[in-house]
Amino acid sequence: MIEPIKWENNRIVFIDQTELPVRLKYVKCGDIDTLCEAIKKLRVRGAPLIGVAVALGYALAAINSKEKTYSGLKKDLDKASKKMKATRPTAVNLFWALDRVEKNIVRANEAPPFVYKGRDEVSREQKITINRIKKIILKEALDILEEDKKMCVNIGRNGARLIKNGDVVLTHCNAGILATAGQGTALSILYEARKQGKIFKVYADETRPLMQGSRLTMWELMRSGIDATLICDNMAASTIKNKGVTKIIVGADRITIDLDAANKIGTYGLAVLAKYHDIPFYVAAPSSTMDKNIKSGRDIPIEERDRGEIIYTGSKQTAPLKAKVYNPAFDVTPAKLITAIITEKGIYEIKGVRRV
Amino acid sequence: MIEPIKWENNRIVFIDQTELPVRLKYVKCGDIDTLCEAIKKLRVRGAPLIGVAVALGYALAAINSKEKTYSGLKKDLDKASKKMKATRPTAVNLFWALDRVEKNIVRANEAPPFVYKGRDEVSREQKITINRIKKIILKEALDILEEDKKMCVNIGRNGARLIKNGDVVLTHCNAGILATAGQGTALSILYEARKQGKIFKVYADETRPLMQGSRLTMWELMRSGIDATLICDNMAASTIKNKGVTKIIVGADRITIDLDAANKIGTYGLAVLAKYHDIPFYVAAPSSTMDKNIKSGRDIPIEERDRGEIIYTGSKQTAPLKAKVYNPAFDVTPAKLITAIITEKGIYEIKGVRRV
Repeated sequence: MIEPIKWENNRIVFIDQTELPVRLKYVKCGDIDTLCEAIKKLRVRGAPLIGVAVALGYALAAINSKEKTYSGLKKDLDKASKKMKATRPTAVNLFWALDRVEKNIVRANEAPPFVYKGRDEVSREQKITINRIKKIILKEALDILEEDKKMCVNIGRNGARLIKNGDVVLTHCNAGILATAGQGTALSILYEARKQGKIFKVYADETRPLMQGSRLTMWELMRSGIDATLICDNMAASTIKNKGVTKIIVGADRITIDLDAANKIGTYGLAVLAKYHDIPFYVAAPSSTMDKNIKSGRDIPIEERDRGEIIYTGSKQTAPLKAKVYNPAFDVTPAKLITAIITEKGIYEIKGVRRV
Repeated sequence: MIEPIKWENNRIVFIDQTELPVRLKYVKCGDIDTLCEAIKKLRVRGAPLIGVAVALGYALAAINSKEKTYSGLKKDLDKASKKMKATRPTAVNLFWALDRVEKNIVRANEAPPFVYKGRDEVSREQKITINRIKKIILKEALDILEEDKKMCVNIGRNGARLIKNGDVVLTHCNAGILATAGQGTALSILYEARKQGKIFKVYADETRPLMQGSRLTMWELMRSGIDATLICDNMAASTIKNKGVTKIIVGADRITIDLDAANKIGTYGLAVLAKYHDIPFYVAAPSSTMDKNIKSGRDIPIEERDRGEIIYTGSKQTAPLKAKVYNPAFDVTPAKLITAIITEKGIYEIKGVRRV
């Protein structure tokens, strides 16, 4: 299977997703600035994959640090963490993964009580500690990567129970292999259902402005042999009505305590269409996408991206250069429009909505 | 004011709309094949403008005909008409305009009873008749053009009554100057409201895949000084919710007896969003868009366009080359989702929907 992210020879190796579907290009990344640029430019994207990427980025920063003391290393790591946190504000997995690796460094430092043994002893001791801390950070990052793979399979198995023969599934953006370190979230459900021999069709929204649906989801689904058809985002309503869509399944970038879900721009509109056409609307995401610090969707920070993404399509100018642009990268679907949330732990029906 | 179509020196002169917003390029068109290609490729588009274009096309075919007899001319014209009717199936204005000019040629031929006066007399008489018929056709086509201009103003004046200070209007595709021979349908309402000194904002859907919203509507609105902001189609739901959209106004390509309305793909989804957010949804169109031969929206033929329009954005490949594609150019909004239809004759509220 395609691996969108790997750790090889103390480097992060990732697929530059902006090159797909034309080229499958791997980038070897040895520094935080390259990684941050890749996340900002969506070379590496998808909430769970961003989480894995920044965890590995933290390990990279640790390995690259020339500091000999804990406080020096900590300073380098804090700097790297701050940079990575500034890349994209909406996906909570980024913050979750960094919090998780950060907690480790503190714990690792505190675990063996520091014993003062004279000046020479200290520096030896510190050197050991520093190396041990770096190893612990890397192990934690690689654990996150491996757990992400398992999480994908489990979301897929849980969700596959909902897929029936003859289903026509609509999906948005890319919540697949390329959005995770494993086999995806929303698309993992389809991959597992297919493994189980179920026959169904998929329609994929192209997902403007950055075309993750047409570039990535179509590429993945076609490789897997799933019957997939590409549509423009504005064809979703017509497709639901005329092509008999039976369910909509999407991923998520952040889910609040109230179970409102932020996801790629366009998701909220699809949820409204699902309600109007009386078909279920599912959100598939790892439990790391749950943000226990935010109650309502209103409080999720929504990234607004560069106007150039809409003024130009490809390299062609398709709007007046001075056009005012509103370019939110995400929207929030309120819990009342979500039929169920599918995580690696199970299917959570949301009360007051249609039955699963 | 910009004239998207003119008749000059026995030629049709039209703006090649595929070049906008980068270039304002006029094309002089002296033959039906060039005109048909222009309509197919959306160089000339917009239901009312297509109607005017084919009426002028019919006049062009008449003038270009070298036939000396009525039956010969009729044959040439029928051939031209058939070609033009095969360009785009959904907009009824095309068929309406051709029917109207066609009826004239028959009437013109029948009006002066043909008098047989020997061989020489016949050819003289026929020549007079042929030239007179050509003149009558051209006059009828130019009448359609002039009526279209007046119709636009009247739609605008009727609809402007609905616009209030502080309104935030969402529109889709291009139902403006560039969709008609005059100042548009949906956008004419905004132009008239602005003339009346009303202050409001507009959001324009970019309208995939051919970007009539970003390329044409934004260009028009910015020229007119109206406060306009461009969004991707999938941002409409989020914009309605977060930017306080107060009404949606679109054009139409065909309206049935039951008042179902076909319009650019994406319109139906917007109507669902309007209902969910409890804001009015207006369709603005000339009465020539009403098709008295079709009862329900189910019977409107929906044009499906080339897959290449979605596989490539601009000249950039943004989907796998072999991707299956569904590319309907229009969808149908059922009457129950339309608040009112605004024509040059007045505002027709549709019962059972929200009040205007």
